[in-house]
Amino acid sequence: KEEEEEDVAAGVRVPVVRLKFGEVAESTKVVILPVCRAEEKDKEVMEAPWECTSEGELGVMVAEKGWKRWVVLPGWEPVVSLGKGGVVVSFSDARVLPWKANRWYKEEPILVVADRSKREVEADDGFYLAAMDGEGLGFKVVRGSALKEAGVEESLGTVVLIVRPPRDETDDQLSDEDWE
Amino acid sequence: KEEEEEDVAAGVRVPVVRLKFGEVAESTKVVILPVCRAEEKDKEVMEAPWECTSEGELGVMVAEKGWKRWVVLPGWEPVVSLGKGGVVVSFSDARVLPWKANRWYKEEPILVVADRSKREVEADDGFYLAAMDGEGLGFKVVRGSALKEAGVEESLGTVVLIVRPPRDETDDQLSDEDWE
Repeated sequence: KEEEEEDVAAGVRVPVVRLKFGEVAESTKVVILPVCRAEEKDKEVMEAPWECTSEGELGVMVAEKGWKRWVVLPGWEPVVSLGKGGVVVSFSDARVLPWKANRWYKEEPILVVADRSKREVEADDGFYLAAMDGEGLGFKVVRGSALKEAGVEESLGTVVLIVRPPRDETDDQLSDEDWE
Repeated sequence: KEEEEEDVAAGVRVPVVRLKFGEVAESTKVVILPVCRAEEKDKEVMEAPWECTSEGELGVMVAEKGWKRWVVLPGWEPVVSLGKGGVVVSFSDARVLPWKANRWYKEEPILVVADRSKREVEADDGFYLAAMDGEGLGFKVVRGSALKEAGVEESLGTVVLIVRPPRDETDDQLSDEDWE
């Protein structure tokens, strides 16, 4: 819709969705995922619980181990499809994304949903969570092609979804274009 | 509506609600609460994290400590009103409730939502989570009057809500009567 959004969508294989107020809601299913802070580097990403199963009729979620940070996401397909190894990394802004950074990208926090069970760098146009040596950010979202050029074969996980925060304006959902 | 429901509603000051499929959903707010199993007796109830706060625009929940079991509930008023100390206890059936046990009560698991910051036994017609010595169940939901008769002044917490599992029939929501 906006020019900015189009820039972002170009060539991106990862859906970027903006959460709506009350959206954790419009699906018949929600997913609880463990959250790591980008500031903690790869430590938390490796340590966060891998297996979170649903117990009984009342939807109690049981993780294999205790964890402090959790987020509830609507049952979006990439999230529901996660098996063991799903994890969310919270970034204070979106400059970690490898595509053109727009103004709002520096102002908005994002959540990156990744699949730790898919660590191998396979697709050139896929996106991966990768720890960056010597960089203050801890890790970044990196294109498969860039990792391959750098000789990196294994990432921390394949990125399956990027979530932006809700806005006050209600008609601001990203279009299907963002899904490529 | 059903005769059974009316039995339950009589004199009960605690809302009993049946979760609808997809209901964690119809509110603009959801709440994540730590869950304890009734089998673990009062140990888990005392240990479960007391403070769970929401962090940032993306609704990440941060608990004061790690925990394995969590449940997402719709933003029902008694749940949203919980401050520090909110906890959920999962029971495999509803026979722990102090009112007339009906057939379906033995067949359905329930969640009891309690406020650990309100431990004092105050209201005769209130309901409290109380550890029962010498009983296999660990603890029960007990009427204030019964606790007072037994000389118990402090409970594990005041019960604020009881949640029943969703049913296949869709028009089965409890009526307002259950809210007394």
